[in-house]
Amino acid sequence: MDSIAIAGMGRMGANMARRLLAKGIKPAVWNREPEKLPPLEKAGAVTAATLTELVSKMKAPRVVWMMIPAGEATEALFLGLLSLLEKGDLIIDGANGNWNDAVRRSKKAAQSGVDFLDAGVSGGIWGLEKGYCIMTGGPEASFKRAEPFLKALCQEGGYLHCGAAGAGHFTKMVHNGIEYALMEAYGEGFELLKASPFGGMDMSAVAGLWNNGSVIRSWLLELAQNAFDKDPGLEKVEGVVPDSGEGRWTVEEAARLGVPLPAISVSLFKRFRSQMKDNFADKLSAALRSEFGGHAVKKAAGK
Amino acid sequence: MDSIAIAGMGRMGANMARRLLAKGIKPAVWNREPEKLPPLEKAGAVTAATLTELVSKMKAPRVVWMMIPAGEATEALFLGLLSLLEKGDLIIDGANGNWNDAVRRSKKAAQSGVDFLDAGVSGGIWGLEKGYCIMTGGPEASFKRAEPFLKALCQEGGYLHCGAAGAGHFTKMVHNGIEYALMEAYGEGFELLKASPFGGMDMSAVAGLWNNGSVIRSWLLELAQNAFDKDPGLEKVEGVVPDSGEGRWTVEEAARLGVPLPAISVSLFKRFRSQMKDNFADKLSAALRSEFGGHAVKKAAGK
Repeated sequence: MDSIAIAGMGRMGANMARRLLAKGIKPAVWNREPEKLPPLEKAGAVTAATLTELVSKMKAPRVVWMMIPAGEATEALFLGLLSLLEKGDLIIDGANGNWNDAVRRSKKAAQSGVDFLDAGVSGGIWGLEKGYCIMTGGPEASFKRAEPFLKALCQEGGYLHCGAAGAGHFTKMVHNGIEYALMEAYGEGFELLKASPFGGMDMSAVAGLWNNGSVIRSWLLELAQNAFDKDPGLEKVEGVVPDSGEGRWTVEEAARLGVPLPAISVSLFKRFRSQMKDNFADKLSAALRSEFGGHAVKKAAGK
Repeated sequence: MDSIAIAGMGRMGANMARRLLAKGIKPAVWNREPEKLPPLEKAGAVTAATLTELVSKMKAPRVVWMMIPAGEATEALFLGLLSLLEKGDLIIDGANGNWNDAVRRSKKAAQSGVDFLDAGVSGGIWGLEKGYCIMTGGPEASFKRAEPFLKALCQEGGYLHCGAAGAGHFTKMVHNGIEYALMEAYGEGFELLKASPFGGMDMSAVAGLWNNGSVIRSWLLELAQNAFDKDPGLEKVEGVVPDSGEGRWTVEEAARLGVPLPAISVSLFKRFRSQMKDNFADKLSAALRSEFGGHAVKKAAGK
């Protein structure tokens, strides 16, 4: 088995390192802020405060799993690793990256004789205990090298070689696009229940009921029940839903490929609206009602 | 325990009768077409070819669970039963009916001293084995009378008293509205995968992968894997998606109550589009492109 490192000790990376340790694999770990390292050292990992130290502490051939935010941070780490690694090493990009970046990095790594695999990782904070769900893209040979680690990180059936370079991140992107629409679907249903004449019903009990034998049972619905148990009216939660790259990329890809994704795109756009205090389109609609019909316009506060 | 009958030996009603029998409860059963009765008689049920016979074969107080299509068929059965049942009997409406009908029937039954409970039943053909998920509405006392039968039909936690008359069918309606959007979400995701540069990937393997530890795991996704296993490209399936009442009622209620349901409503509307060979709005858009820009219009076949 190759030696393995996990670069990035955020919640995901640290939990993946801990899961490897629990499965008898001793990873090397690095983090930009070294204060995250001592607990991992205590848990049995080899720690390194710099990338140079990380690479020097690993026996060739090396597998380095990047687990830091996608975009600039991952690009900097990728270039740093590429300058340090040797021919025959393997870089795995585990961030929620754009699949086009994975294709580009795969080509760039190949120029240095370094293998590259893109890996979309789902499972959130529950992966440590229940195993992750990992979608990989890249050459079959690179996938095979990663497989012993995938086996440790996932339950049986929890990882897949989805295709050529980029396929892992593309599949993870689609997964997250679906996730946006599933979350919106449940949100809409519970909103309608709450607005109805039966709005006083116990939402946790309804979620629990639906998870017992109904067609719409799912893990997200189990999480909804957890949320209702903590705060039945969700009064402590503000209705602002952030979005990360994948939802946007899913809709961009749909537009590029000419594929109709109405439910996923309205779910993304509703998130955008939730992030805004006011909305220019809504202002214009209010203004137009006033222009053509003399309907009252609600004045913006202080104007 | 009251005596129980199930009126309507379609797939749902017959399976519910079989599940009661498996739990040691002997129901009386009726069906409009009596040729469905002999297998149930063989399985141990009391059978009746007419409603009069059904009621006469039951000991008071009676519980009659209507399990036939919502609308006119259920209304006729309801009125027929009401004319035969005695004060203190209980009618349960298990069809996917409109909640307003349940409220109306509840009042009408009360005039005859007959109790009424609306019950939304989910679980499809899998309920016989795994237990149903049943949402009930009506007076607490009627729910309590039904509870021994609900216990037999469901797993623990698989039934709920959602509130006053109508609450069961309202909750089932919302359940089905959510179901429409969940199905559309998965459909859109797999369509994008298929249209992508990685479209050759094994869709069954992807569904199986996502069901192993990913955030979007669900029972519907398990069914999707079953479907891909039978027909990987779904070539034997025409992309026409029927809709039943609940999806429409969900959107009607949303419009009535002023609740934004973008994902559920586009999912319903996309089903409508799937049911049409051509679409007048699309014809008009094509015609307008021709009017303003001289873009070619594809002639309708034979015109």
